[in-house]
Amino acid sequence: MILPFEFASIPKIIFGAGKLSELYKIIPLYGNNVLFIIGESSLKKSGTWDKIVENMETLGIDFSHVSVSSEPSPSVIDEYAAQYREKNLDLIISIGGGSVMDSGKALSAMIPKQDSIKNYLEGVGTKKPDGEKIPFIAIPTTSGTGSEATKNAVISQVGKEGFKKSLRHDNYIPNIAIIDPELTLSCPPSITSACGMDAFTQLYGSYVSTKANPMTDALAYSGMKYMKDNLIPACTDAQDDIEVRTALAYGSLISGITLANAGLGIVHGFASSIGGLFDIPHGLVCGTLLAEAVKMNIEKLKEMGEKGKDSLRKHAKIGALLANETGSIDTDMSKYLEILITSLDNWTKTLHLERLGKFGIMEQDIDKIVEKTGLKNNPVNLSSKDIAEILKKRL
Amino acid sequence: MILPFEFASIPKIIFGAGKLSELYKIIPLYGNNVLFIIGESSLKKSGTWDKIVENMETLGIDFSHVSVSSEPSPSVIDEYAAQYREKNLDLIISIGGGSVMDSGKALSAMIPKQDSIKNYLEGVGTKKPDGEKIPFIAIPTTSGTGSEATKNAVISQVGKEGFKKSLRHDNYIPNIAIIDPELTLSCPPSITSACGMDAFTQLYGSYVSTKANPMTDALAYSGMKYMKDNLIPACTDAQDDIEVRTALAYGSLISGITLANAGLGIVHGFASSIGGLFDIPHGLVCGTLLAEAVKMNIEKLKEMGEKGKDSLRKHAKIGALLANETGSIDTDMSKYLEILITSLDNWTKTLHLERLGKFGIMEQDIDKIVEKTGLKNNPVNLSSKDIAEILKKRL
Repeated sequence: MILPFEFASIPKIIFGAGKLSELYKIIPLYGNNVLFIIGESSLKKSGTWDKIVENMETLGIDFSHVSVSSEPSPSVIDEYAAQYREKNLDLIISIGGGSVMDSGKALSAMIPKQDSIKNYLEGVGTKKPDGEKIPFIAIPTTSGTGSEATKNAVISQVGKEGFKKSLRHDNYIPNIAIIDPELTLSCPPSITSACGMDAFTQLYGSYVSTKANPMTDALAYSGMKYMKDNLIPACTDAQDDIEVRTALAYGSLISGITLANAGLGIVHGFASSIGGLFDIPHGLVCGTLLAEAVKMNIEKLKEMGEKGKDSLRKHAKIGALLANETGSIDTDMSKYLEILITSLDNWTKTLHLERLGKFGIMEQDIDKIVEKTGLKNNPVNLSSKDIAEILKKRL
Repeated sequence: MILPFEFASIPKIIFGAGKLSELYKIIPLYGNNVLFIIGESSLKKSGTWDKIVENMETLGIDFSHVSVSSEPSPSVIDEYAAQYREKNLDLIISIGGGSVMDSGKALSAMIPKQDSIKNYLEGVGTKKPDGEKIPFIAIPTTSGTGSEATKNAVISQVGKEGFKKSLRHDNYIPNIAIIDPELTLSCPPSITSACGMDAFTQLYGSYVSTKANPMTDALAYSGMKYMKDNLIPACTDAQDDIEVRTALAYGSLISGITLANAGLGIVHGFASSIGGLFDIPHGLVCGTLLAEAVKMNIEKLKEMGEKGKDSLRKHAKIGALLANETGSIDTDMSKYLEILITSLDNWTKTLHLERLGKFGIMEQDIDKIVEKTGLKNNPVNLSSKDIAEILKKRL
């Protein structure tokens, strides 16, 4: 039975190695006044930024750029929004990682407003975004957040009163997403693995989500299919292999589409709570906790008996996928669940995903984290004790 | 290896039994001046139209409607466009079958223009659509064309100089698609089967298309998965089963998304050529020719040896899906190809899909049809002789 669902619009997607060049045909369709949001260094180091500047000059485009170095905070967004409010921008283009995507998305929404982004953040402000924005093109240089396909920008305030909350509206989906895997070739292993684990966690989370629907099921499964054999090579002996990078870029894109429409689970609950309290890369929180969270989900689903069967079946299907096996899910359920757990444990080891303790998280922080950790659309209910147990395993 | 691809935006999708009621929340967001395009009878007979009128009056919406009885011709679109050009419409809403969808889509694009739609039709006119349109909501009452998710409106001129051509632009994708399977409950078996076969043919055509990509693959497979066990029941002993109707509505929606992004094959080549020359329901052309076209595709793919393997594998995957089997595609390739052919032959018989001869198509028409039949994105090249042979089998 297909239950009622909604599926948001998606950006027009332009996908493939070398497709960055499409940008030069697209910009003039929007106008002549463009703001680029870029990262601090890699785009400049690789020479890509110089090429873009050259093309802008050839096209006679009036452009400026701002650099973003970390996850955007409300004050950074407010400051840039004020700076560009009177500039009559025709288009905003983000080229970079998740923070750059989120910054561009937030600025495209906040430049037309007159007040602070804090007023519009979920769970922080009291105003509802109305969807008005400056057209926005997203060009990721990491295969991670899938932010190029989502309707939300994650805004972080780190510290005691810290939070990691979303600015969200259907209209904030980028107008166009250009996914050019060539841009990810220079991404170092540590970032590739953190981003890749974020994307895979998003695919897993939306696939087993309580809000999943047949469209997100089909897409999330497809994303995992392409990621599974390429994540480790992209971080180890095939960093320069465009085919490998392309598969990761695809998985990441799809993870954005599925999370936007099915939501996520407990691992991203942690990413939100831990990310607000500690300065630790988002992808690493996801990556280091995924295997333990999946184990806990499976254990709790088993305890539910018949009621947990459908979700266990989905977990087993991922196990079968990871093992490249096509056997019967029902007959071989335990085997495939075991494969899923073992595979994720192996990834944790092979990718040297660091423990949370490395970032200063200690036993005494657990209660504080658990209190702030939401289950989101996790397939099974978890108690505070369960949530704490996942954390303890990765301190 | 994932080859470069583009994927167009999709409408915001609102899917599920009873979801028509969402319309009343949405209309006021667009404005107060609404044009409905509806079919000739079924919506009125079922009482749905009366309910809509009542709701429009309660909401104080200024609305009018036009009825459409058959596939839209250029002259019909031109006439209505002229009639509504000065009316400052805020929104156009189509509620009906494929012809009603296409009429609404075409009118939303042509009302802002000053000349004939003929000038903008692919292969007919010389002007390129610029994408300007009046916002458009598509609400299908049949599970067939998937037009609620596509960027083109099919316009037909029947007769000697007849054609069946598209008005197409990325912006013509409906703003919102409301898919409420309850609206299809009153659809009679003959229309349900023709529409269902159209949708399944679109899923097949885009799945094996030369333009297929991982996203269309995942979605088309998912659409076939839900349609396969529900198409026959929806036309026979489970016409009133909302679960069955929901599965068909899902398949149809998905077929629109996949055809818009992967294109179609030889069967829709026929639908275009035959549809321009003869007055015969679109879905019936597809349905009656599908099994024979698939047989021909498989035969020709086999002749290609190694080069045909990837597509044969895809064909075999559909066979395995239809048989609910999870065996190895490579080991059991022949078996699954045979299952695919047999299943489609069975559908043709069980659904009593009429032969083309019933609609006046004769042996001497074959050359004329073949000449006008394009291969589109068929997975294998077919000669004129091959194309004629498919036709002859269903005269």
